[in-house]
Amino acid sequence: MSTDSRKRAPIGVFDSGVGGLTVAREIARQLPNENIVYFGDTARVPYGSKSQNTIIRFSEQIIRFLKTKEVKAIVIACNTASALALDAVHNEFDVPVMGVVIPGARAAVEATQNRRVGVIGTDATVQSGMYTKVIQSMAPDVTVVEKACPLFVPLVEEGFKDHVVTREVIEYYLESMRDSGIDALILGCTHYPLLRSKIREYMGEKIQIVNPAYETAMDLKKLLYEEKMENDGSTREHSRYSFYVSDAAEKFRRFANTVMPFDVPTTNVVNIEEY
Amino acid sequence: MSTDSRKRAPIGVFDSGVGGLTVAREIARQLPNENIVYFGDTARVPYGSKSQNTIIRFSEQIIRFLKTKEVKAIVIACNTASALALDAVHNEFDVPVMGVVIPGARAAVEATQNRRVGVIGTDATVQSGMYTKVIQSMAPDVTVVEKACPLFVPLVEEGFKDHVVTREVIEYYLESMRDSGIDALILGCTHYPLLRSKIREYMGEKIQIVNPAYETAMDLKKLLYEEKMENDGSTREHSRYSFYVSDAAEKFRRFANTVMPFDVPTTNVVNIEEY
Repeated sequence: MSTDSRKRAPIGVFDSGVGGLTVAREIARQLPNENIVYFGDTARVPYGSKSQNTIIRFSEQIIRFLKTKEVKAIVIACNTASALALDAVHNEFDVPVMGVVIPGARAAVEATQNRRVGVIGTDATVQSGMYTKVIQSMAPDVTVVEKACPLFVPLVEEGFKDHVVTREVIEYYLESMRDSGIDALILGCTHYPLLRSKIREYMGEKIQIVNPAYETAMDLKKLLYEEKMENDGSTREHSRYSFYVSDAAEKFRRFANTVMPFDVPTTNVVNIEEY
Repeated sequence: MSTDSRKRAPIGVFDSGVGGLTVAREIARQLPNENIVYFGDTARVPYGSKSQNTIIRFSEQIIRFLKTKEVKAIVIACNTASALALDAVHNEFDVPVMGVVIPGARAAVEATQNRRVGVIGTDATVQSGMYTKVIQSMAPDVTVVEKACPLFVPLVEEGFKDHVVTREVIEYYLESMRDSGIDALILGCTHYPLLRSKIREYMGEKIQIVNPAYETAMDLKKLLYEEKMENDGSTREHSRYSFYVSDAAEKFRRFANTVMPFDVPTTNVVNIEEY
């Protein structure tokens, strides 16, 4: 690929479903000249209860699909796949791949004053202990408290965001976290920012809530600059965003229109098992 | 296949995950001479939020896998796949395939006195309207009230069965059902029998709770008898049950040991996408 066509190549972003749209939105905001190809694995969602081997296989299929779209870099916009598959796929493909765990961990290390950080995420993410490993490799003096909150995703997806039940589930999961003395809490799942105000209300104003999406977009910006792959926008008319899913395109499209700051006119279905 | 080896051939039973074990248990109870091959699609669970095309494709792959085990009949022990895929796969394979919806519907028609039946299930099952279609083809005078309860599955899987939150979610979903005047309620998802006592407590003693598993085992018995495929047990030592999953075999095996009335020593992982 020529340097110019490489600059114009899109960023690949993928997630198990719709959650990663919050990361794609942040990339669109911070890097307005870049084109994005988004893939949501809606046929096999959720990833948070599945094994590492399966999540690696799914991630490899998706990366092979995104490579057919000539992407210049790939962002795993899913905490579970970032925690369990990034190490495996990182050197397997001839395209840079980054996740959300390292940027999220760095943001928390910068945010904590008392050197106690909390992490909430899916079963698979928490069982991997990846946030703890990454944080302690950056700052060995930081204590990390991890807690899986597997009901948060279905509560968000079923529209229980403002129901009293959600407040009770938050208390059930986070009571020990609140008492643990942390002063920074990583939302280690892309669905959780949608519960941010409820979590903040329960945890209190003194705890800094860290959403890895912003830091991830900033890391991507740095990568593109260092690799001289930034799209300077000189030849573009306007940025192009395309959306692919493995199932239920219309449902995804409706959700995407509530998250993205522009109209999402179409979503395409891909048989991802063929990749 | 000779008549004798056909009689000794196993029954294939499949589900999106662990829920169908309640159906396999009923088959083992009612047909103690039969061998069973169970497949749980744990890599792609749940099915209840996915599209019909995807559920048909998944079901076809699983039936092709079960056919490699020389099964003589297949039971779709998943309400969602029964509702959305049975019609499509029914005549596609040279092995009889049955689901849980028709037996469950028949049991409810027999149970109702006031000709008002309720059905609870996943989004996909309820949106298909299949229970209503089947019940009204059997008994046009019966009114059917369907209601999706998508949070029940994650609540069961996350161990919230006895938590106060579950009582509140039951009330949220079933208040209108309780006020609708039904006198029979189909548990149209294989996870729901695990909430049976809580649902009964909320709905009251006057409402008959229908679990399609028993009726399904009875329909299978009738099919085997009519097709002269019953295993009379004359050549067997003891019945054999084997368990296959698409992911997380050890987690499945532990759960299976809490459901099945015998020891489940091993579970095998299959890459189902290759079928």
